[in-house]
Formats: sequence, C-alpha cells, structure tokens
Amino acid sequence: MSGVIERYRSFFDINAQFPIVTLNEGNTPLIQAPAIASKTNVPGLQVFLKFEGLNPTGSFKDRGMTYAVSQAKAQGATHIICASTGNTSASAAAYGARAQLKTLIILPEGKVALGKLSQAILYGADIVEITGNFDQALDVVRILGKAQGVAIVNSINPFRIEGQKTGAFEVCDQLGGKAPDYHFIPVGNAGNITAYWLGYKAYHAAGRIQSLPKMFGYEAEGSAAIVKGHKIENPETLATAIRIGNPASWQGAEAARDESGGKIDCVTDDEIVAAYQFLASKEGIFCEPASAASVAGLFKACSQNLVAQNSVVTCVLTGNGLKDPDNAIRFGKSEKITLPPDPQQIATHLGLTL
Amino acid sequence: MSGVIERYRSFFDINAQFPIVTLNEGNTPLIQAPAIASKTNVPGLQVFLKFEGLNPTGSFKDRGMTYAVSQAKAQGATHIICASTGNTSASAAAYGARAQLKTLIILPEGKVALGKLSQAILYGADIVEITGNFDQALDVVRILGKAQGVAIVNSINPFRIEGQKTGAFEVCDQLGGKAPDYHFIPVGNAGNITAYWLGYKAYHAAGRIQSLPKMFGYEAEGSAAIVKGHKIENPETLATAIRIGNPASWQGAEAARDESGGKIDCVTDDEIVAAYQFLASKEGIFCEPASAASVAGLFKACSQNLVAQNSVVTCVLTGNGLKDPDNAIRFGKSEKITLPPDPQQIATHLGLTL
Repeated sequence: MSGVIERYRSFFDINAQFPIVTLNEGNTPLIQAPAIASKTNVPGLQVFLKFEGLNPTGSFKDRGMTYAVSQAKAQGATHIICASTGNTSASAAAYGARAQLKTLIILPEGKVALGKLSQAILYGADIVEITGNFDQALDVVRILGKAQGVAIVNSINPFRIEGQKTGAFEVCDQLGGKAPDYHFIPVGNAGNITAYWLGYKAYHAAGRIQSLPKMFGYEAEGSAAIVKGHKIENPETLATAIRIGNPASWQGAEAARDESGGKIDCVTDDEIVAAYQFLASKEGIFCEPASAASVAGLFKACSQNLVAQNSVVTCVLTGNGLKDPDNAIRFGKSEKITLPPDPQQIATHLGLTL
Repeated sequence: MSGVIERYRSFFDINAQFPIVTLNEGNTPLIQAPAIASKTNVPGLQVFLKFEGLNPTGSFKDRGMTYAVSQAKAQGATHIICASTGNTSASAAAYGARAQLKTLIILPEGKVALGKLSQAILYGADIVEITGNFDQALDVVRILGKAQGVAIVNSINPFRIEGQKTGAFEVCDQLGGKAPDYHFIPVGNAGNITAYWLGYKAYHAAGRIQSLPKMFGYEAEGSAAIVKGHKIENPETLATAIRIGNPASWQGAEAARDESGGKIDCVTDDEIVAAYQFLASKEGIFCEPASAASVAGLFKACSQNLVAQNSVVTCVLTGNGLKDPDNAIRFGKSEKITLPPDPQQIATHLGLTL
C-alpha cells in the first residue's frame, strides 16, 4: 500500500514526474465504536472512529505534509520551515528527513511539550526557540520563508489542506463507497474540517459517493474563536493541539458548516477529558486529549437531539495518545499499588479466589 | 479494513460464531528504505521496513493480543492477566477494555517506563507492582491464572504466537505475493521470530508464496542468551523491549534459524543506537530503540557478506518511538537554541541569507 498521493493520484494536480515524498501515510483504521454508540442513547446509531494517530508520525498532519514536502522538493527547495509546538513540527521533521531537506522549526518559548519535541529532535530538525509567542514565531517563519531555497510548510501552505482531503476519501472507501451521515471533528486551526469537507465534495463530484455528510466541528471552550465570533487573545485548554485563538482556516470551517447544514460548537475541558477516558477504558483506543473533542461533541449533539436515529457517524481522532503520556497518567482511573510477591495477598487485593 | 483474524480467517482454527475482539490491528505499512539500502553497499539491495509501531497500541503485540483476548472471551473469562513492564501490558489493557474484561497487570518493582505505563493506566487496567523481579511477577501470574475466570495473556499463551503469524502474511501480500529473500527481526522473548517463521511456512504450504526467506534474528549483546547458549541472569541493554535473559520461545527461534538457513546474532547498544538515529534522520521513521536491532543486524550481516546482491530484505520495526521519548531526546542530534524573535539573527544562526 502506497501513500495518499499515489492512492488518490487523480485528485492531485501532478504529472507523472512529480517526486512523491511519502512514509506510506494514511490507510488508517476506521474502528467501530459500539460503546460510544450505546452511550449516546440514539437508537440504531453506528459510530466509527477514524484513528489518525496511526499515521507515521502519530497525527493526521502527515496527510498534508507528504504533499507540501513533495511540492517543496519539486520546486527545488533545500529547506523547509514551520512554527509549531507539536504535531506539525514532528511531521515536518520526518518528511524533511525523508526528502533529504533541512527542517527548521521555530518554537515559542516555554510552550514545548517534551514528548512531541522528542520526535523533531530525533528526526534531526534544527530547532530555534524564540523569546516570544506563537504569533511571533509564525512572523519569523513568514520572513525566513522568503530566503533562497526555503519552503514554508505551516498550514498557510495550501498543499497541506490538499493532502488532508484524502482522509475523507478513505472514510468513504472504508464505508463501502458511502459518505457518513454526520462527520464529527475537532477544530483548532480549522484546516482539517476544511480539508475533509473539500474531500467529501470532491468525491461526490467524482461520483464516488451519492450523498454528503453534515459537518460537526468542535472547538475547546477556552479557545472557541469561531463559536464566539472573535479572536481569543489567550486561548486556554488542556487539549493543546487545538489551543488556537485565531484559526487560520476560519472561513473554511464556516463554509463546511453552512454548506453541509452542520454546526460549529465547543466542548468544555471536562467533557473532553470524559470522552478521552471513555475512549480508552470502554473502546480500547488511546488518543490525544484534543482528539476526544470529536467524541465529546457527538455526545453533546446527541443530548441536544441533533443526530437522527439509524445514522452513520464518523468521529476523527486526530492524534496518538502516546504524544501526551502526562495527561494519560493524570486522568487515568487506575492506581498502581505495591505489594510483596505473595499470590494470596495479590489475589485478595484483586478480588480473585484462588 | 478489518483486523488480522477476519482478514486471514482461513489460517485460524475458529468457527463462524467465534467472537472476535479487534481494534483493526495489522495492515501496517511496508515502507521502502532507500537510505538504508544505500548504506549497506550491497548492489541492488531492496530494503523494506514493516513498521509495526503503527498498530493500535503502538507495537506488534496487538496481532497476538487480538487472538488471545478473543479466545479468552470465547472461553468465558472475566479477567485477563499478564506480567509485563511495557508493550504487552499496554496491548492487554486495550484489548481487555475493548472486550469488557478486567485486565490485571503484575509489574516488577522499579522497572516501569512511565510512558508505556501511561497506556495501561488510561485503558483502566488494575496494576500491581511487586517487590520482586520479572520472573517473580510471572510466577504470580501463573498462580493467579488458575483462579476462576482468569486467562493468562503472556506469551506462554500459544494464541499470541498464532496471531503474530499474520505479520508474515502481510509482508508477502505487500510484496505482491512473494516472500522476501531475508527477514531481519529483533529477538527478545523470541516469540515474534517464531511467529513470523510459522507464518511464512503456513503461507508457503497454502501456495500463497513460492519461496521462504532466511530468518535473521538479532538479540542485544547484553541479553544475548541464544547467541551465548545460556540464560543471562542480569540482562542489560537500553533496548528495554528486548532485555530478556531467558527467552520463552528459545526453541522456536533456533528452529526458524536452522530450518531457514538463517542466523541468530547480536548487536551492541552502540549499533542499536546508530541504527535508531539513522532510521529517524535518514528515513524519517521513529521507532523504539529495540526495533532498530533489526536494521543494526542488517548492517552487520551486510558487512559480513551474508546478504546476496539484488535481494529483497524486510526488517521488522516492532514498536513506536513515541513509547520512549526519553531515549529520543538523549540520542537526538539536534540541539535547541533560544534566540530573540529577530529574523536576521535567526537567519544567521540557521545559515540562511535573507
């Protein structure tokens, strides 16, 4: 199985000589979620989780990065650059290494999750932390992106969204050539909801699917710029991957909502954590906290009677839980107990009868 | 795409009513590795990496766990139990949650990598740390496994190896219905090399492939029981996932070697780290240190002229690098530097001309 560009080649504007930089991204599982479906209390609901954490660098970013880095390579770039504290930097560093391009990462000071940064470090990116915030880091990137041979791979690069469309194609293929009735997705920078909607529309236009889903996007309450209708100066949520106060693809998200008859809403950190715990302990799926916003959104929408009986729902889980072990330990329900290696005592503790 | 049992159903001894507990494991990418091939200096060599870190819980263990937990469910178990400090416990806890069984994990004291344990914690397993070593933990498991309703899912459970055979099936399918000429794989408890060899033989017997690979297994030098021909009392290697001094499937590994005309050898921690760095910085693939033993082994075997020109080689990468961020940071080649948000100063540092 090749990567997403090769598999969906007719949906990309490339010729036969186009140099594809791939890590065989995509082809992630669509996992049925009976416990979630049951918890919604909506009769006949079928819920499927698109587990994007199983991409090569652990997030959906790889779908867009394969195309952005391939284009950089095609255009003769020697360097790629991005501002990021997380999944984007990991993906850029991996595809940069694969393409034999130098990857430059500009980080805002003190906002670096060490776990995610570990990826960029081992992939061998050049990392500069600036004494400033994310917006300043992005300003630096815009200026350095004008240097000879440097390509910007932040989401201001339109090839990123082009590549991410393939997530929608895969969902439809995995559902047997059908779109879901509802598509739930976390919203941070809003590029992914924009990309999925473009993907569904492209597949529909090509005759691969006969209907379109309603798009339901969920921001975190503390960074819900689109829901509140204005930029959030100091966005706050434990779901760091969607902690964005001024989404770059704001208009794309609103278009997806309006054209599909969907909704952009927000969920609280408590709702996100509850969904994160439910996913792991009832479905066996370990995602990033931000990923669980889609499932938290589904629970909220069902409680508001916004989801029809007997529907097919997909929820995108954007990143791998292993990116953020600290939150797993913080919100895990198990406790570790230390005992001597005495089977009887351990059996008693565990409620087993020997 | 369903999980490995459904996809390879005819290779499992089950009936139509068998309850399959799955997270859509398997179907992991086989990624071509041109930089590794080039570095071997073997003319015409084609190298493919089977990236098992993209299984649902981040390691190859999921292939066996789906079958072991399904069998436990079929037999009416209420609990599953295992001794582990890492990938096995994460996989057991996930499939246990999925199956609505209680998962019990017995850990040796002080050998717990917090990152890996984060998975078991969020999946909701009951975790008991004992004041003793791994062997004592396994002894406890053997005794508690006799309690009513408890199924042991350590690798002493033969269903684990049955499930892991599917890795070989997928490699052959991904190579277009052919076996590789050489199969390189890390060896710790030796269950995986045993399983791959059984898988290749089963596919060959079924007429799905026309040849068999030579099996090359690599232990870490500090825990190379099979190579040295005796148990290692205090195994040591930074590749913790293969730090095992008395492999449970010792005989299976030797059979794979002897029947295939292959080799069991060992690599040093330095060789493992070098391969781990090379994989990330030249191929863009972030695996666990233990996983890199297969690639370190390939480099060693090629330097010994054990690999023929124009061959097809597969190397299994057993686990996701995100399981072990500490080693990525420790062995990463990048350094983070802090600068003011001054584009000119940053450009100069990065060697760019504005």
